[in-house]
Amino acid sequence: MSIAEEVRLSLDEVDTLARRVLTRHGMSEQNARAIAAVIVQGQRDECHSHGIYRLIVCVRSLRTGRVDPRAVPSLRRLAGSVIEVDAHGGYSLPAFELGLPVLVEAARQQGLAALKIRRCYHFSALWPEVEAIAAHGLVGIAMCPSHAWVAPAGGTRPVFGTNPIAFAWPRPDGQLPYVFDFATSAVARGEIELHARQDKSIPGDWAIDEQGRPTTDPHAALRGAMRTFGGHKGSALSTMVELMAGALIGDLTSPESLDYDGGAGASPYHGELLLAFDPAVFAGDAREAGRASGERVLGEIAAQGARLPSQRRFAARERSIAQGVRVPRALYEEILGLLD
Amino acid sequence: MSIAEEVRLSLDEVDTLARRVLTRHGMSEQNARAIAAVIVQGQRDECHSHGIYRLIVCVRSLRTGRVDPRAVPSLRRLAGSVIEVDAHGGYSLPAFELGLPVLVEAARQQGLAALKIRRCYHFSALWPEVEAIAAHGLVGIAMCPSHAWVAPAGGTRPVFGTNPIAFAWPRPDGQLPYVFDFATSAVARGEIELHARQDKSIPGDWAIDEQGRPTTDPHAALRGAMRTFGGHKGSALSTMVELMAGALIGDLTSPESLDYDGGAGASPYHGELLLAFDPAVFAGDAREAGRASGERVLGEIAAQGARLPSQRRFAARERSIAQGVRVPRALYEEILGLLD
Repeated sequence: MSIAEEVRLSLDEVDTLARRVLTRHGMSEQNARAIAAVIVQGQRDECHSHGIYRLIVCVRSLRTGRVDPRAVPSLRRLAGSVIEVDAHGGYSLPAFELGLPVLVEAARQQGLAALKIRRCYHFSALWPEVEAIAAHGLVGIAMCPSHAWVAPAGGTRPVFGTNPIAFAWPRPDGQLPYVFDFATSAVARGEIELHARQDKSIPGDWAIDEQGRPTTDPHAALRGAMRTFGGHKGSALSTMVELMAGALIGDLTSPESLDYDGGAGASPYHGELLLAFDPAVFAGDAREAGRASGERVLGEIAAQGARLPSQRRFAARERSIAQGVRVPRALYEEILGLLD
Repeated sequence: MSIAEEVRLSLDEVDTLARRVLTRHGMSEQNARAIAAVIVQGQRDECHSHGIYRLIVCVRSLRTGRVDPRAVPSLRRLAGSVIEVDAHGGYSLPAFELGLPVLVEAARQQGLAALKIRRCYHFSALWPEVEAIAAHGLVGIAMCPSHAWVAPAGGTRPVFGTNPIAFAWPRPDGQLPYVFDFATSAVARGEIELHARQDKSIPGDWAIDEQGRPTTDPHAALRGAMRTFGGHKGSALSTMVELMAGALIGDLTSPESLDYDGGAGASPYHGELLLAFDPAVFAGDAREAGRASGERVLGEIAAQGARLPSQRRFAARERSIAQGVRVPRALYEEILGLLD
């Protein structure tokens, strides 16, 4: 792509653009700030589907009238180790921002703590949240349901969402954390949509058609169901996400979220579960030994040439912080159009 | 197999036999009782490799002189939500038994709690433990490392253990819980050993040889490394188990456990991490709705003919409770031989 077809933006410019678009569509300054921060992180790490492209998704959701753009989340402590933040029908991100400092404090005090976010619309990756937990020296785990698009192993119909699980482990000496964030579906739904737009066939283990048969036709796959990763084990993990980040916290599961949407095409509406663990409490007198053990395991993986997750993202981050980001001109202009 | 080649035993008889074998090899009554209880559960559920066959494995471990058969575990509270039980070089099971009531009480009080078991020898499945947590109406998660036999995705050498993850979700109306317990390796190591004994080739995605190449030769696989399930996602989960149930709790990771064994052939020596969540706290006023959501998800999976995990085990349990268990005569006699 030639330079003329791209626009170069600083991270501050991405942030300003995102906030202008969001407030233009009725969002409060406070909520727009929280969401823009995560869109900047997505663009910075070159997770393009979670960068400024998401503004288009957000605006579409806002236009359905479902998401409350001025929602003010509220917090209460359900027990010593459990914090609930009610998003009151707004996006998950302002709710997370409200809950994070209380989660961190509770984890340090109790050794571990949980943050339950309820009644939120959700469009973001989970790695920004587990990384934010790890930035406090804590271990972070996050999971949430989505819309029911994925069939259980051996099944024929959608039950699960893409049900991501994310994990971040803080590393010493100013290193970025060990982080993964993956869907328990075989691939992201966007991948199949991309193949459908290009009329390209998909691998046979991604999806089934409406009759429950494996298919390589992306259109049939979108009418049918995606499959989980890793066979019955991935299917069991996806079930766990429905139970933990849906039923346990008393919020919607993926089938319920899809029903609730009723074809409106808003982002999924459900809850989210985050956990934080304090290594200073867990390891006791073996803190330094534990830290060193973790580094040896990660070092041994890397020494084999087996890439650690998130390394590509971290390399992009370094580039973007130094040089800003490049955005396709067509996308940039589409987003400017949202300001009209 | 004809009746003459099998011995039928009641569950009480299995229990008595197991306790006699264990105490005959120097184990204290208290420790033998905890271990026999889990061996009975394995035999009852027809998990044959975790039934009375395990007595042979235990006795082999005891004969190395590594495991302390009379160890008395000790408990301390590291924080409001974190309980540590030191197994003092004995088996994990008496340590779990000591920690369980305190874990349950802490989870009810704090909403969630963790039990860290340290310095234990480990030979048992994790489902008896998460089921014991679910029997109190709590959600249970457990994980532990083992010996380094599994290579990371894209790697060539062993780093991970078989690193199981287990989960139990309590169900209403006296139903057995939703339970899974799986290795993050592609298969159990015992499967490859079985193929090696029979000189049968293995599927190409189970293992790599010493040069890091995929192999169908079980002997080459045993000299090389097993692979994780589910590609890089399974590999990430296995890394998480090393970090959470090794480094976080300041105990040995799988490479360290294998080094520690130094060829003695004892059971792996490391720690274990268990979590318990109280739905009564997490769901708040949505407790009944959450319970119903969970049942709908599980019902929808089963309605598609997609088997829930543990159903085969639960069917065996029902049979065994009614009729006792059948054990191959050769195995029974080998175990009687351990009483000499």
